Amino acid sequence: MSLHTKVDVVVTLGGDGTVLWAASMFKGPVPPIVPFSLGSLGFMTPFYSEQYRDCLDSILRGPISITLRHRLQCHVIRDAAKNEYETEEPILVLNEVTIDRGISSFLANLECYCDNSFVTRVQGDGLILSTTSGSTAYSLGAGGSMVHPQVPGILFTPICPHSLSFRPLILPEHVTIRIQVPFNSRSPAWASFDGKDRKQLAAGDALVCSMAPWPVPTACQNDSTNDFLRSIHDGLHWNLRKTQSFDGPQDL
Amino acid sequence: MSLHTKVDVVVTLGGDGTVLWAASMFKGPVPPIVPFSLGSLGFMTPFYSEQYRDCLDSILRGPISITLRHRLQCHVIRDAAKNEYETEEPILVLNEVTIDRGISSFLANLECYCDNSFVTRVQGDGLILSTTSGSTAYSLGAGGSMVHPQVPGILFTPICPHSLSFRPLILPEHVTIRIQVPFNSRSPAWASFDGKDRKQLAAGDALVCSMAPWPVPTACQNDSTNDFLRSIHDGLHWNLRKTQSFDGPQDL
Amino acid sequence: MSLHTKVDVVVTLGGDGTVLWAASMFKGPVPPIVPFSLGSLGFMTPFYSEQYRDCLDSILRGPISITLRHRLQCHVIRDAAKNEYETEEPILVLNEVTIDRGISSFLANLECYCDNSFVTRVQGDGLILSTTSGSTAYSLGAGGSMVHPQVPGILFTPICPHSLSFRPLILPEHVTIRIQVPFNSRSPAWASFDGKDRKQLAAGDALVCSMAPWPVPTACQNDSTNDFLRSIHDGLHWNLRKTQSFDGPQDL
Amino acid sequence: MSLHTKVDVVVTLGGDGTVLWAASMFKGPVPPIVPFSLGSLGFMTPFYSEQYRDCLDSILRGPISITLRHRLQCHVIRDAAKNEYETEEPILVLNEVTIDRGISSFLANLECYCDNSFVTRVQGDGLILSTTSGSTAYSLGAGGSMVHPQVPGILFTPICPHSLSFRPLILPEHVTIRIQVPFNSRSPAWASFDGKDRKQLAAGDALVCSMAPWPVPTACQNDSTNDFLRSIHDGLHWNLRKTQSFDGPQDL
Repeated sequence: MSLHTKVDVVVTLGGDGTVLWAASMFKGPVPPIVPFSLGSLGFMTPFYSEQYRDCLDSILRGPISITLRHRLQCHVIRDAAKNEYETEEPILVLNEVTIDRGISSFLANLECYCDNSFVTRVQGDGLILSTTSGSTAYSLGAGGSMVHPQVPGILFTPICPHSLSFRPLILPEHVTIRIQVPFNSRSPAWASFDGKDRKQLAAGDALVCSMAPWPVPTACQNDSTNDFLRSIHDGLHWNLRKTQSFDGPQDL
Repeated sequence: MSLHTKVDVVVTLGGDGTVLWAASMFKGPVPPIVPFSLGSLGFMTPFYSEQYRDCLDSILRGPISITLRHRLQCHVIRDAAKNEYETEEPILVLNEVTIDRGISSFLANLECYCDNSFVTRVQGDGLILSTTSGSTAYSLGAGGSMVHPQVPGILFTPICPHSLSFRPLILPEHVTIRIQVPFNSRSPAWASFDGKDRKQLAAGDALVCSMAPWPVPTACQNDSTNDFLRSIHDGLHWNLRKTQSFDGPQDL
Repeated sequence: MSLHTKVDVVVTLGGDGTVLWAASMFKGPVPPIVPFSLGSLGFMTPFYSEQYRDCLDSILRGPISITLRHRLQCHVIRDAAKNEYETEEPILVLNEVTIDRGISSFLANLECYCDNSFVTRVQGDGLILSTTSGSTAYSLGAGGSMVHPQVPGILFTPICPHSLSFRPLILPEHVTIRIQVPFNSRSPAWASFDGKDRKQLAAGDALVCSMAPWPVPTACQNDSTNDFLRSIHDGLHWNLRKTQSFDGPQDL
Repeated sequence: MSLHTKVDVVVTLGGDGTVLWAASMFKGPVPPIVPFSLGSLGFMTPFYSEQYRDCLDSILRGPISITLRHRLQCHVIRDAAKNEYETEEPILVLNEVTIDRGISSFLANLECYCDNSFVTRVQGDGLILSTTSGSTAYSLGAGGSMVHPQVPGILFTPICPHSLSFRPLILPEHVTIRIQVPFNSRSPAWASFDGKDRKQLAAGDALVCSMAPWPVPTACQNDSTNDFLRSIHDGLHWNLRKTQSFDGPQDL
């Protein structure tokens, strides 16, 4: 994994994780990222490293097709009843922030608000707040839909909820979401950011998320739709099936 | 069910179906619709008819909070290989257009394109193309996510696909989707529009959908987010569960 | 497709549909079926037709490993309030019986009973009652689990239910299930048997299902578990995934 | 929570957890358990404690309807390549055994075998092996079907798998399942038993499960089917929905 800043673009070499890492270097405006894959292509890495020189030449000449990937800006608020404002540095995630029960044998118990309206109480393993870029990562494993990265929205995906009716929800990108660990919670919750940096949330703590002002531009091999479709076909075998044989309807 | 046009708004009285019907009256710009419910509130009908006079007075005085609901514009193209252009009048849907196998014992077999890129082949009962307003209607039954009506996007939700990996997909609102019945298809498919007006699609026919230029403004009781959350709580019992008792983790 | 009865076994040649058809020939005891596939192997057809002679020699010499596949015995009862007893010949299904709304624009509305206990009301596209052999057929598309054919049980799988909490259910094989079209139903329902033979169920009609006394023995290539695992791997690409690359947790 | 053994039955008072705990006291034959609930009824606690005396009198007079609940017998095998036999005492679970990644940021990576046939590799948060009694507990949150406790089978339910096609599987009760942590695994896995007693499984360790010889008889309020249906209606709001209004098909 390496990172070279040259002129106007950032070049990454590795899996999707290298793009997450490169993006995390920039808290403000982000230069276009040109993500090369070391092996098979990833969801955010549409360029083969074997073609490094030609691709880069072509990109620097332009024109260049870009996917603007939005990030979630997450604030942990300690003892939220007393502190109206942020008490820790914001953390930016390109895929998702997860709040879960860790190894506690008690269910996570999280109160969720959207622009100060009560949304629901999560009881289960936890909750994922995901960008649309992150819709093909952890949210997908938890049952979320696949969302084209150009759809502006925030995925609200429960992890193993006990409730039968807790279908995933998608909220507009302009909202502010607040996840509160109740003051009488029997156990803490754990937040993790793009799969890393676990932080404990004690009873009374909260996590507040909204869309970050600066998106991450990543270069496309073809265009945003083609790259996305290629990644879900090749990377996830989406709707891959045996060709239907032709001796009748009984073969469904 | 009745429809009165007064000054600048359209008033409807009935279930969500009355809003679908009222919207279908307007092929061009649509005046704000104020939807009163006759019984319990619906997904698009946030006003109690018992409070008809007060609500309407208040709305006409303004200000008024609005949900802009996008519609899909659907063209049926007969013998698509020969006809590049539309061969029938476009149909506007506020919830969804469905292409299914009807009562055929053969699986539906549909080739799907997004802006001329091949997306996938649907083999199963059929496919739903839904607006985000329609995400709480038929698409939900087929396993789609619930999407806030202010998220701009088109839901691509298979109906009983045989493939295990055919997770629902959400596409940006700016794309054009084309569903093609293959030229060698053994049986026709059937399109229906907001649950009505079934049309047969023969082998070689296609359905082309894109977002319609004129959205449908519907009046909110509170605001778009609150009305949406109220409707999924009350109308769908979303994440309704027995209150967790408190004698330990075994109770999951 | 051809069917030759020789000595003690029935040989079929074709897809799974040929096994369904061969089984349907026997209302009473069923001889062992040796199912050869014409192309790739199916869920019930584990023998390659190219190896016809050798396989058959080996099977006739024995010993032979068998999967006993249970069938559902279905009675349509017309005007069920007046007729306590069956009014039509029973129909045997090896995969599933489906009760759906056909092309009606009204939801199916079905009252379901298990051994005279009320189970639930189905509102949606319909309901599948499936054997465990049928768990990899239509029930799977509707969201049912995959069930090893040696698990004794009946799958109760809704088709596109509107209710968020209508998770599929699996009942013991000894129960009798009764699906009633309500007397005040606005539209008829349609039953189909292993994907064929659609019959209209009018308001007041019922379908009564229980496990048939005579199972269908099908010969195994290896043993029941190996054949089943082979069929879900090869035929359904169950849990097929790209090999996980190894540059870190971000790659989920 | 209290436990009194009298004559031939065990009486429990509390939530489902008390039944799990009482069952865990018996490694061999288990006397009938009469489970009283302290509050609302649970999945295994069908008797109201307010009616303690009458219920117990009636049960002791008999006859008594029983649900025989099967348990999984779990062996942890340390350094499985070297040890063919069990290296720790077997643990009995009435609901489920879970193997997960704990708080590791690496995916769980588990090789699964059924009677020595390779089943699949789990990559995700983990795997649940559940009895049918446990089908309404953790397995349900992870997407498993609801299974009547009299269906003999073992649920194999992945937790947040990355693979789109990893549908839950149900295996016969007579099989032996082996879950192996690969020898080259980058991180350990964690097993927990009925939600408790977490044990670390290092690279090379395995968990071997099969149905325990002694089931747990629990007394029924009515009969096994009625009690089960009551518990999924009341406890899980299964298929609870707003009564469908009657102004047309658009209301789906």
